[in-house]
Amino acid sequence: MDIFAQYKPSIERINRRLLESVSPELPQTLSKPIRYFLNQPSKKIRPLLSILCCELLGRDSNDAIPAATAIELFHDFTLIHDDIMDQDDLRRGKPTIHVKWDSGTAILVGDALIGLSFQQLVKSPAVYLNRIVKIFSEALVKVCEGQALDKSFETLPQVGLDGYLDMVAKKTAWLFKVSCEIGAILGGGSATQIEHLSQYGHHLGLAFQIQDDLLDFVADESKLGKKVGSDFKMEKKTYITLKYESMLQQNPDLAKRFPEHATDYGSLPEFQKALQEIGVVNEVEKELNQYFEKSLNFLRAVIPFDSNHPLYKITRLVRDRQY
Amino acid sequence: MDIFAQYKPSIERINRRLLESVSPELPQTLSKPIRYFLNQPSKKIRPLLSILCCELLGRDSNDAIPAATAIELFHDFTLIHDDIMDQDDLRRGKPTIHVKWDSGTAILVGDALIGLSFQQLVKSPAVYLNRIVKIFSEALVKVCEGQALDKSFETLPQVGLDGYLDMVAKKTAWLFKVSCEIGAILGGGSATQIEHLSQYGHHLGLAFQIQDDLLDFVADESKLGKKVGSDFKMEKKTYITLKYESMLQQNPDLAKRFPEHATDYGSLPEFQKALQEIGVVNEVEKELNQYFEKSLNFLRAVIPFDSNHPLYKITRLVRDRQY
Repeated sequence: MDIFAQYKPSIERINRRLLESVSPELPQTLSKPIRYFLNQPSKKIRPLLSILCCELLGRDSNDAIPAATAIELFHDFTLIHDDIMDQDDLRRGKPTIHVKWDSGTAILVGDALIGLSFQQLVKSPAVYLNRIVKIFSEALVKVCEGQALDKSFETLPQVGLDGYLDMVAKKTAWLFKVSCEIGAILGGGSATQIEHLSQYGHHLGLAFQIQDDLLDFVADESKLGKKVGSDFKMEKKTYITLKYESMLQQNPDLAKRFPEHATDYGSLPEFQKALQEIGVVNEVEKELNQYFEKSLNFLRAVIPFDSNHPLYKITRLVRDRQY
Repeated sequence: MDIFAQYKPSIERINRRLLESVSPELPQTLSKPIRYFLNQPSKKIRPLLSILCCELLGRDSNDAIPAATAIELFHDFTLIHDDIMDQDDLRRGKPTIHVKWDSGTAILVGDALIGLSFQQLVKSPAVYLNRIVKIFSEALVKVCEGQALDKSFETLPQVGLDGYLDMVAKKTAWLFKVSCEIGAILGGGSATQIEHLSQYGHHLGLAFQIQDDLLDFVADESKLGKKVGSDFKMEKKTYITLKYESMLQQNPDLAKRFPEHATDYGSLPEFQKALQEIGVVNEVEKELNQYFEKSLNFLRAVIPFDSNHPLYKITRLVRDRQY
């Protein structure tokens, strides 16, 4: 049975809790766009990670439900505010809030989601509350740092792969890390177990973002829920374009494969073909696998490999996703 | 000695802490606008209320410094995001962040300030942490509700004074209330003391906003740090315009004092003069005093009137402010 079918009851509980977090007292100008967003299908990978890490350590996953809900609300806030900044029109296949309503509404909805998120978090078992609120507050600053770095890359002429990975570690991987870390804390894990699961989440998050860059480049548009090549069209720095630039530094002849100078990427299909031919896509896929391997190594430190264990299953599922 | 001189050391500690909360690790695209904003002079009324309520109940104000800093950071976040939504160009006499940088930066700075704010809050004494984090998270949702209501008023044809006060209770008064409530909790107050101080803060906050509306209408521009009549020019609903509308319902002849129909307010000076002549300004001033009186009644329930006591001094100072 696939992990989503297996954990359907938990996911449904989170879905219910997400909608219940929207108090009927909220003004409609706030509750309508929030419900619109929460009702869109999402994979719930991050909250599932919290639940699975908590369970792995022997605790009832009930203890992790409020924090898992908080993590999804937090994730939604980042998407809504990022979409304003990146001027993205589609999210999960639907018009973004700032498009369907306006930017002011989208700002406010994101802010309110942070509040709702903390309101869920504080429903976690009291004994762990101080610790997880600290981790969660730090995460909020870190994802802002990540988004600020990402934003600054738009105008920076040179961004190396290291700089890019630092940005990804904050913008994307931090919440994966925190999902696992909080789950492990709520599961009553030892310091070592918490650290290993936290590192598992960090590397899984790095892999997730690199894979996102790859999918943006090659995926099926109808499945992705947004335009393929949307990163590319904004000439955004991604793992793909930066890997190309780093390969180009070592071998300037690669540029000859492109109709014009390398910084002018021409049309997307041309560019895709050229990057495949010179081996950039292969190279990125290889490194992507290395990140997945690293995450699995940390997982193995906590529990021996078992292809049927939910955490190994979700890792495989993330690895195999096509959108 | 005035309250700001008397509490200079506390205010300076908060100012230092505000700047220290901006970690040197933050990317410059985030830390520069944050420092720009934090370095602007602000009255620090809300953090002072926390400190004074804590002290009043016999505790060392040191215990309230992290929460007081958190409250100021939170307040700053609301100003920065509200200024984007309201398209205000000036704040504390300086260009707003979305004008000096851009909207994306201002969104991100606001988000980061929420994170920094919670990071300060969790440095409060552990024994009270669960409780104050809950209050703080609720406050975040409430101020968003208030701002959403305020935003919706722009397009609503009819907003009564009750609806307006409900909005003000959330948008402005909630943080005053929470400042006092958290201070009282950290001061080890009894349930009744906490409730009375919380109500003191609520009514002081209502008075503060009504006074803001009045000052926007009549104040000295150079002191106010923003354009006089800026609310008015956007035809925003304020306590003044709504009071006028409610007086107009009882006496439709009042409209004859205006050159054109009441919904077309003409130029600001004309409108100011007419509203003064028909007694709207007087009426608002009278009600404003009633809100101050209510706040003082709740304060008296905790400590007998003493014009030299810091909380009575700060209430008087708020009452007498010209900007």
